[in-house]
Amino acid sequence: MTTAYIHPIHLRWSDEDRNGHVNNSKFMTYTEDARIAWLGRMRAETGGGPGSEGVILASLHCEYKAQVHFAQSKELEVVNTLRRLGSSSVELHQVVRLPGDDGEVVADLITVLVSFDYANGRSAPWGDRQREWLQKFTEHAVESSPA
Amino acid sequence: MTTAYIHPIHLRWSDEDRNGHVNNSKFMTYTEDARIAWLGRMRAETGGGPGSEGVILASLHCEYKAQVHFAQSKELEVVNTLRRLGSSSVELHQVVRLPGDDGEVVADLITVLVSFDYANGRSAPWGDRQREWLQKFTEHAVESSPA
Amino acid sequence: MTTAYIHPIHLRWSDEDRNGHVNNSKFMTYTEDARIAWLGRMRAETGGGPGSEGVILASLHCEYKAQVHFAQSKELEVVNTLRRLGSSSVELHQVVRLPGDDGEVVADLITVLVSFDYANGRSAPWGDRQREWLQKFTEHAVESSPA
Amino acid sequence: MTTAYIHPIHLRWSDEDRNGHVNNSKFMTYTEDARIAWLGRMRAETGGGPGSEGVILASLHCEYKAQVHFAQSKELEVVNTLRRLGSSSVELHQVVRLPGDDGEVVADLITVLVSFDYANGRSAPWGDRQREWLQKFTEHAVESSPA
Repeated sequence: MTTAYIHPIHLRWSDEDRNGHVNNSKFMTYTEDARIAWLGRMRAETGGGPGSEGVILASLHCEYKAQVHFAQSKELEVVNTLRRLGSSSVELHQVVRLPGDDGEVVADLITVLVSFDYANGRSAPWGDRQREWLQKFTEHAVESSPA
Repeated sequence: MTTAYIHPIHLRWSDEDRNGHVNNSKFMTYTEDARIAWLGRMRAETGGGPGSEGVILASLHCEYKAQVHFAQSKELEVVNTLRRLGSSSVELHQVVRLPGDDGEVVADLITVLVSFDYANGRSAPWGDRQREWLQKFTEHAVESSPA
Repeated sequence: MTTAYIHPIHLRWSDEDRNGHVNNSKFMTYTEDARIAWLGRMRAETGGGPGSEGVILASLHCEYKAQVHFAQSKELEVVNTLRRLGSSSVELHQVVRLPGDDGEVVADLITVLVSFDYANGRSAPWGDRQREWLQKFTEHAVESSPA
Repeated sequence: MTTAYIHPIHLRWSDEDRNGHVNNSKFMTYTEDARIAWLGRMRAETGGGPGSEGVILASLHCEYKAQVHFAQSKELEVVNTLRRLGSSSVELHQVVRLPGDDGEVVADLITVLVSFDYANGRSAPWGDRQREWLQKFTEHAVESSPA
């Protein structure tokens, strides 16, 4: 069973642009906050260690699914799961939706993070505890079918 | 020969986040400004018309290539070319770099826009003049053909 | 007795600038959200009417009292009271503090709003219900004097 | 004669909020950039020294004079003069206007900065060279005196 890390987002009036909907760049801020909370929880629960300190955003892909209006909802949530775990990287699936399991999906992102050792200027492999922790959030595209 | 639409970006001190480099979400703002200037020029040079008014950002993909520091450069530029022209959509290639043809590439984006008719709530095919105008910016992956 | 309108603020990681504290401009965003929520409640509770629709920010004064760090608190609150009620304007006192009655004050703002009639391009006097509603939030510098 | 430090501002499309004009908080970003450029020039021209490194924004007062629309002007400028020079503080007058000496004033700010010694956690008096440099920008409320 997949565990998802769900992070609440509180809209601000000025998140909207002159088109009267939340500006496209705000979804990057929302998902950034979700990643930071998630990684903070990893550090807290794994006791830190290799590959758990500095993380760099390498790429992101965002599909905009629906407009978001401050007047309709003051909250969103980001549902985070792990799509692929590399030796020092991780590919996350970050779905932004209206609150609740039935909440409309408004944006669907894939973000790739690299664990980085700033002191030595190179990528830093995840430690065993971090790998174990992250894998709990693995997304199963196909859950398995009965024989 | 490809014509690129080059749009200058002026950094702001607060574009940087607490990590001391330009925040990942700002590249969406930079490329948004480039698209708006480009589309404004299209409207001005084609006299408006079908498919030239409302445009929706459908998706974006961004590869972060290098950190940007306000203390090193106050300007960037976005080099825009057309990757694919659909009946009512367009796929743009937006390269963010330090100024000049030899400027280091700091982010590489693909953005998909859809021309939209808000009054009727559906996508709006580009007019002939718009298609002709946009095609001038077509990106040629292979610039020369063998003899 | 003074009633204050208290509005919660949820910090975002990127509210901090490269100095590692919340950027000075964010306090304007926090207090804007508080004003919008407050005025929205006025409209809901008074049934709208004269002087309750369009409001313009005429001026603000902000005293920065303490740095705010995302790592220390994810929430702030804005305590709003009414300092002066004019015929078509209002002077608000907006105190930004850490949550709770004993929360440290981090910024202290005076903001002046003018009720505006956009259709006619001029200021719009508050209606009686709006005046009555706003006065409930009047700030009493001297709460009572000894007998 | 007063020397003013004039700093150009390049608007961004998303500076506007859903009301279709530049959001009130952006004037803080514009004037911040002007201060940073001004102080950077002070450091460069005075060779650094006491009171020239860390500066804290203590307060600001902003009078909003006119709406700013991206569609009307892509540029503003901030005209900076010195209103009062304290031993370790400075009160600046920052006028935001459309470009040029005849440009309409859109916002008028007074900002108070304190030179700060972060290492020792206290305010840091300006050095002689910094005082001399800053005084060149002194604003003379009364330009001429009666005979």
